[in-house]
Amino acid sequence: MAALRAAVGADGVLTDTEVTASYSRDMMPLAPSATPVAVVLPSSTEQVRAVVRACAAAGVPIVPRGAGSGLSGAANAVAGCVVLVTTRMNQIIEVDADNRLAVVEPGVVNLDLRAAVEKRGLFYPPDPSSYDWCTIGGNLSTNAGGLCCVKYGVTTDSVLGLEVVLADGELLRTGRRTVKGVAGYDLTKLFIGSEGTLGVITRATLALRPLPQAPATLVAAFDSTAAAGAAVATIVREGVVPSLMEIMDQTSISAVEQHLNTELGAEPGCAALLICQSDSGGDAGRRELAVIEQVCRDSGANLVHATDDLAEGRMLLAARRSVLTALEVYGAWLTDDVCVPRTRIAELISGCERISRECGLRIAVVGHAGDGNMHPTIVYDPTSEREFARARTAFGDILALGLRLGGTITGEHGVGKIKQEWLAREIGPVGLRVHRGIKAALDPDNLFNPGSMFSMS
Amino acid sequence: MAALRAAVGADGVLTDTEVTASYSRDMMPLAPSATPVAVVLPSSTEQVRAVVRACAAAGVPIVPRGAGSGLSGAANAVAGCVVLVTTRMNQIIEVDADNRLAVVEPGVVNLDLRAAVEKRGLFYPPDPSSYDWCTIGGNLSTNAGGLCCVKYGVTTDSVLGLEVVLADGELLRTGRRTVKGVAGYDLTKLFIGSEGTLGVITRATLALRPLPQAPATLVAAFDSTAAAGAAVATIVREGVVPSLMEIMDQTSISAVEQHLNTELGAEPGCAALLICQSDSGGDAGRRELAVIEQVCRDSGANLVHATDDLAEGRMLLAARRSVLTALEVYGAWLTDDVCVPRTRIAELISGCERISRECGLRIAVVGHAGDGNMHPTIVYDPTSEREFARARTAFGDILALGLRLGGTITGEHGVGKIKQEWLAREIGPVGLRVHRGIKAALDPDNLFNPGSMFSMS
Repeated sequence: MAALRAAVGADGVLTDTEVTASYSRDMMPLAPSATPVAVVLPSSTEQVRAVVRACAAAGVPIVPRGAGSGLSGAANAVAGCVVLVTTRMNQIIEVDADNRLAVVEPGVVNLDLRAAVEKRGLFYPPDPSSYDWCTIGGNLSTNAGGLCCVKYGVTTDSVLGLEVVLADGELLRTGRRTVKGVAGYDLTKLFIGSEGTLGVITRATLALRPLPQAPATLVAAFDSTAAAGAAVATIVREGVVPSLMEIMDQTSISAVEQHLNTELGAEPGCAALLICQSDSGGDAGRRELAVIEQVCRDSGANLVHATDDLAEGRMLLAARRSVLTALEVYGAWLTDDVCVPRTRIAELISGCERISRECGLRIAVVGHAGDGNMHPTIVYDPTSEREFARARTAFGDILALGLRLGGTITGEHGVGKIKQEWLAREIGPVGLRVHRGIKAALDPDNLFNPGSMFSMS
Repeated sequence: MAALRAAVGADGVLTDTEVTASYSRDMMPLAPSATPVAVVLPSSTEQVRAVVRACAAAGVPIVPRGAGSGLSGAANAVAGCVVLVTTRMNQIIEVDADNRLAVVEPGVVNLDLRAAVEKRGLFYPPDPSSYDWCTIGGNLSTNAGGLCCVKYGVTTDSVLGLEVVLADGELLRTGRRTVKGVAGYDLTKLFIGSEGTLGVITRATLALRPLPQAPATLVAAFDSTAAAGAAVATIVREGVVPSLMEIMDQTSISAVEQHLNTELGAEPGCAALLICQSDSGGDAGRRELAVIEQVCRDSGANLVHATDDLAEGRMLLAARRSVLTALEVYGAWLTDDVCVPRTRIAELISGCERISRECGLRIAVVGHAGDGNMHPTIVYDPTSEREFARARTAFGDILALGLRLGGTITGEHGVGKIKQEWLAREIGPVGLRVHRGIKAALDPDNLFNPGSMFSMS
């Protein structure tokens, strides 16, 4: 403890259990957590190095975290650990508009970066749902996605280089400031999505894009999920790349309609809504939306509405983004993030309807239809042990369904402390062995986030 | 040798030294090579596994290779090795147009894949200069780039998953068939660009894009490289993303003009040409080219010519692609592939002019201006030991210049067997230690391509 105070100053070490408890877990209710022995808030790379060296010397595990918006328990404290919080390292060090890049510390809030680069006519695409409070460091560690991914990819696609503190306190610099580069192994992308198990990211060089055109928005209502799924598959097949393509099932729609006390433009009994945007601008944007509109009509949409109005588009997106909040009227929620081939979305939704009937719990399906990344969200009574148990079973049933459909157990939330067994199932024994080999090579004493993602034995 | 014949059949093992010599090296004259003890041509993943197990048991190193079009000696044989050639594994196993992906064996020629998916209205972007004879396996192992990268990224941006034979003969499957996925470490991108040092890629799942619109082309001539460099920086700054933006310096231009017996539309004494394309189509494409045209004029271009004519566009690109061939009139060539921030291109070109004067050799600079990846190409008399020595010195001087300008030693060709010391210089001792740790974890006996990229001691 003295070493930690020497490393970051007395005000950077929290030990009051009432305070440290608030740093013990993220937003995933299923994941186990513990109260950390201390929470440290370093302000610089050098302080992170000192903390890592102190913990390594004392054999105390470190769980790195940002804002704690994660949905897999990756940032949850483990017994006897120090939680290393990066939120004080929140400087945007550089925005280089000429080379379209930014250099940031890990504690920068996603929205703050977006706003800062937008002033320079630039765009940082990754936009996880928690973008107004999650941090870039957490986004990097989980390889976060968002609504932008159908056109702009996930976090790893926007990163040029990293600075990482390793388990022995040494500082590793990966990547570069140039657009291309193949000097050595792609360590940048190895650390991205490694969920704090390989090191602590203390700085990142991010690739920016030109600010896209103002988006035009289209909403289409379907009276079957199969029709909506067929529309998505055909849009993909037609070669249109919308900047956003979201789907909401009947349960999501009615929850949001009640929550916002509004109609989403759908007739009563509407089974699925598609919300699409194009940010191509001009006639390219109009052409894209026209193709999408035609496909939706051909697939049996009973309502299609397109608009250039920015306020209306924002309102539709706000409705989409409010699904989880809207569901809280009915209970606590537990959200999956399976990703399936885009041709299998309708099957995923109908499978979730079956699982809902089997477990007797409401399951709302909402998701990023454009890339097949779906969020079936199970609603349960948090005061009922039995409902929680049924929710847990349904959570696993949905993962199994995703795998059966040729998908992955996690499209953007990560493995964390809830899907270790599922990871082993997805990647198999050879994959697991390679993971353990890499972890052992970089973190031989299992200092960083032990037991998260996979166990070493 | 018996084990190899058992593994791949007698016709899959070559030992005649006149034949094996032709598999001893790639296209980089600087790199050391040796004659392999055998060349094996497996036809299946199982055969690759058998070869790897046989070599591992006998302690014989394996150098994997495709067509041998590489420019860093990565595929060059080392003493006492078996060269494992993947060209017989040349099946396109699947093209799934609905999910925009293809599954291929490593020996498929890049152009064959492009043609096969184009028939389905799809596009595989990576287009290294050797695209008409290089293989996908080699592209994956070097993380190859090309002319497309300014808009579509490098090879790693088009890969969803891999099948890799590891040093113990086990088969690792990485990645997935879905657009997104964060289950575990990003092993796919770790193997891409690892230059055959970690395993043998036997299958790849590739992400495809919709076929872009027919390209419109613009060529601009400048009477100083500084003006051309300024135009590139301003185009980037203006937020235009052309589908291609190539630069040729005076030496390249005159070599090509002589070679093709044509004028490239430039006045005599033209110092630099920019060739740009937009594949956005319609008014979006016209808008992009109009911005580029205006920027070129404002930057002092003395000739700007835009055309929708496909044949004329192809001719201009063919001229650009013929630079290396054109230079062969003057001697052998040695090409660098430094990548610098896009604002530093003019400085790179003027630095190469200085190096050319110092070494007394012709240096043509041609490159992918849109992403700062430049190919200064040194021309020397291959019969003169002294010229070759001077060319080697100039090659290193250009790498040092690239690093000084904030760039990397290799944007797309790789480290191979010529830039090991430069890699160490670029990534530093901590980076090198991490590389060695990962290599040791995956290939403890240093079976695959030993000494390439970096040495283990």
